[in-house]
Amino acid sequence: MDDILKLDAETYKELMKRYMETRDEQSLYEVEQASKSFIQNNILPDEIVNMHIQALEELYPSLSEDIQYSMNFLLEAMIAYGIAHQEYQTLREKQS
Amino acid sequence: MDDILKLDAETYKELMKRYMETRDEQSLYEVEQASKSFIQNNILPDEIVNMHIQALEELYPSLSEDIQYSMNFLLEAMIAYGIAHQEYQTLREKQS
Repeated sequence: MDDILKLDAETYKELMKRYMETRDEQSLYEVEQASKSFIQNNILPDEIVNMHIQALEELYPSLSEDIQYSMNFLLEAMIAYGIAHQEYQTLREKQS
Repeated sequence: MDDILKLDAETYKELMKRYMETRDEQSLYEVEQASKSFIQNNILPDEIVNMHIQALEELYPSLSEDIQYSMNFLLEAMIAYGIAHQEYQTLREKQS
């Protein structure tokens, strides 16, 4: 994993941890802001789902197998969106 | 919810149900294919996460509160990607 992705995965996990403790709107707002910076760092939507799976496994080591499998399923559903997002980045670069 | 989104949510749930029962590669391949058709139907990545939450709640009514909250967090993280995806659709339409 490259450095930016690793840093973003850490940020994601910390924000999620805080949200799970507080369950407040402020933490949700923070992830919305972080999400914009993930996009600027060229993090793809399927990588977000991957960071989510990692964070879940680290914060909830006893996560049920069903949930783990369901998250793999979501990851697979998001891969085509990752490819579309890469095309979007390319189109934007051409425009600028 | 419009008709296409409703139909896609049903497809997503059925594919996930099958995958959770079989846990085989074939079902993962099917969601990968379905995912391409979701994109063609202008379904946004955050709507995929929403369909995932709905499917989880329907297939696992006793889903823990922690998992429900964590999925809301992921949904929030995906909203900026939804906006980016809409821009991508607009850019592509301009090109065609």
